Amino acid sequence: MSRVYNFSAGPAVLPEEVLQEAADEMLDYRGCGMSVMEMSHRSKVYDNIIKEAEADLRDLMNIPDNYKVLFLQGGASQQFAAIPMNLMKNKKAAYIVTGQWAKKAYQEAKMYGDAVEVASSADKTFSYIPDCSDLDIPEDADYVYICENNTIYGTKFKELPNTKGHTLVADVSSCFLSEPVDVTKYGVIYGGVQKNVGPAGVVIVIIREDLITDDVLPGTPTMLKYKTQADADSLYNTPPCYGIYICGKVFKWLKKMGGLEVMKQRNEEKAKILYDFLDQSKLFKGTVVPKDRSLMNVPFVTGDADLDAKFVKEATEAGFVNLKGHRTVGGMRASIYNAMPKEGVEKLVAFMKKFEEENA
Amino acid sequence: MSRVYNFSAGPAVLPEEVLQEAADEMLDYRGCGMSVMEMSHRSKVYDNIIKEAEADLRDLMNIPDNYKVLFLQGGASQQFAAIPMNLMKNKKAAYIVTGQWAKKAYQEAKMYGDAVEVASSADKTFSYIPDCSDLDIPEDADYVYICENNTIYGTKFKELPNTKGHTLVADVSSCFLSEPVDVTKYGVIYGGVQKNVGPAGVVIVIIREDLITDDVLPGTPTMLKYKTQADADSLYNTPPCYGIYICGKVFKWLKKMGGLEVMKQRNEEKAKILYDFLDQSKLFKGTVVPKDRSLMNVPFVTGDADLDAKFVKEATEAGFVNLKGHRTVGGMRASIYNAMPKEGVEKLVAFMKKFEEENA
Ligand SMILES: Cc1ncc(COP(=O)(O)O)c(C=O)c1O
Ligand SMILES: Cc1ncc(COP(=O)(O)O)c(C=O)c1O
Ligand SMILES: [Mg+2]
Ligand SMILES: [Mg+2]
Ligand SMILES: [Mg+2]
Ligand SMILES: [Mg+2]
Repeated sequence: MSRVYNFSAGPAVLPEEVLQEAADEMLDYRGCGMSVMEMSHRSKVYDNIIKEAEADLRDLMNIPDNYKVLFLQGGASQQFAAIPMNLMKNKKAAYIVTGQWAKKAYQEAKMYGDAVEVASSADKTFSYIPDCSDLDIPEDADYVYICENNTIYGTKFKELPNTKGHTLVADVSSCFLSEPVDVTKYGVIYGGVQKNVGPAGVVIVIIREDLITDDVLPGTPTMLKYKTQADADSLYNTPPCYGIYICGKVFKWLKKMGGLEVMKQRNEEKAKILYDFLDQSKLFKGTVVPKDRSLMNVPFVTGDADLDAKFVKEATEAGFVNLKGHRTVGGMRASIYNAMPKEGVEKLVAFMKKFEEENA
Repeated sequence: MSRVYNFSAGPAVLPEEVLQEAADEMLDYRGCGMSVMEMSHRSKVYDNIIKEAEADLRDLMNIPDNYKVLFLQGGASQQFAAIPMNLMKNKKAAYIVTGQWAKKAYQEAKMYGDAVEVASSADKTFSYIPDCSDLDIPEDADYVYICENNTIYGTKFKELPNTKGHTLVADVSSCFLSEPVDVTKYGVIYGGVQKNVGPAGVVIVIIREDLITDDVLPGTPTMLKYKTQADADSLYNTPPCYGIYICGKVFKWLKKMGGLEVMKQRNEEKAKILYDFLDQSKLFKGTVVPKDRSLMNVPFVTGDADLDAKFVKEATEAGFVNLKGHRTVGGMRASIYNAMPKEGVEKLVAFMKKFEEENA
């Protein structure tokens, strides 16, 4: 089979030229006589790889000097614990619960202190982003937490919450590098890379330096302490070397594409094709309030579970794969990350039209 | 350049045919139209990969049914915390300190309870394994901890300690799959895969089922709790998918080679070539007590730091790379893991002979 159109929510499609380069370099990375998988993480050649990855990411996101970039392990889920363990000095934090991932982070934080739910969209199956312009945030909250793009439900914060001066912590796993961000508005931006950036097994944490201290909760594992990782430039122990190398290639690809402004335009264009179709379709409909729609994850339904299943099956056979909605919500979801070409979305919509005609 | 002989202690040399297969499958894994890096970890095709990897590992190591196999993140260093957090029911454990990694594990454990050093070889720069036949192990110790092969110092436990009925926990990072082991003698066997098994970013934990409980220390992150990972078959969150896939290929390669008995013979043969040379050399000498010598990591010195540096430099130029000793001990170290061919060791010894003649 040739390459399919892969609408997986993550791990997800990567740029084909990145994969091709990785294949070409597999046995001998640029004449050094070994694979990147075989390199000591303390070697000069690997040091160049990780340093260049960081520099390119800083460049792409315009990360100020007073922020550290950490390449860590354990996925976003491990950050659900690391964040309170490192940041809960007052043992209090405000969580905005807009989906399952935010909820999991909120529940984990409760193990470490007083995590308060200050807003939620659970009342309507997380199909919208609550108004966060004037929330009741405890004075002594150490931070305000959001999941900026909700992978499962397909919502996105188009405006950041008013944190009333508190540190903002954001899980950007599913919108990482999809558009420009103003890093200075956040204390911590973090995400698993396996959606928009690279292979599973790397989580990137961008954190303001003043938040990196030795004053962490008692019992914080050395590996989960940001200071350990920051002081060692992510080389306290052996990092996920190969994954970081692939992320670095994706950063170069993004720069070549024109950077995050251009990616934003492309992503808006792609999402519009799909949302416009959904809005006029008599068979399919999107599940999210239009103003809060994600550019990355587009959930939709026919309203008939059997028909949904038929659609997913026929789409798969036609080479549009991983369109099944998350096991907890059903229906369909098309994840259209940076590496999904516009053509993939156009062809999907053409296929949906045909399916609609055949199943009218 | 063609491929070098890579004596790195880790990340380290991998079988060339494994890398070749990975390169061939990079853009399209066996006709599924995508890279393993792009696959949902919940897809059927990935499920086959991880299940087959586990089955092959069980087969190779003859792992009994009452042990779970976990594929985790965070490296061996993260296990230094996970082990006490999960196992210290009485808040007491006995540590045998035979090198830096054992010491780090011991120090981390002190954060969580009363970790007691019951033996050490620090008095002679960790150049031997202490007698562990009759140690003073606290009655109520939850476990006895060893680092079975000491990567930096080149020692190996040829006999397991007498734990006096306590659970044995072993870090096997640098001797993983180098020879058969009797799994039933251990409560936990774990190791980072980046030495003998695969790319950095995966740690494998083999743990007896009765040790997997909900009764963990308060504040144990969900991700560090073995029960979380065991209940979800290592798919609680997104695992390091690509690394696991490569480990699976290495397992298949080991089976094809004839399994761990054959690997042991090969490793003994390879190590003998190097140790025999060191024992008769007038220039080079091994640093470890002969009876405790590792089959995997062979440290040696000339006794003259300038000459050591000259040797490393000339060896590198001749295609024998990463022979520099660990930054904390100096001298040289040749790591000769499973994937290092015998020919690599023979050629290294020939090079050392020539160097010895030229520098007599
Ligand atoms: C927004 C978001 N946060 C967190 C996670 C969990 O990530 P991980 O599997 O890396 O722990 C996901 C995974 O799908 C996600 O989409
Ligand atoms: C025996 C041993 N244990 C633990 C470690 C630490 O492993 P990691 O870098 O995966 O944390 C090493 C790394 O070299 C090692 O050799
Ligand atoms: Mg969600
Ligand atoms: Mg519609
Ligand atoms: Mg050691
Ligand atoms: Mg000698």
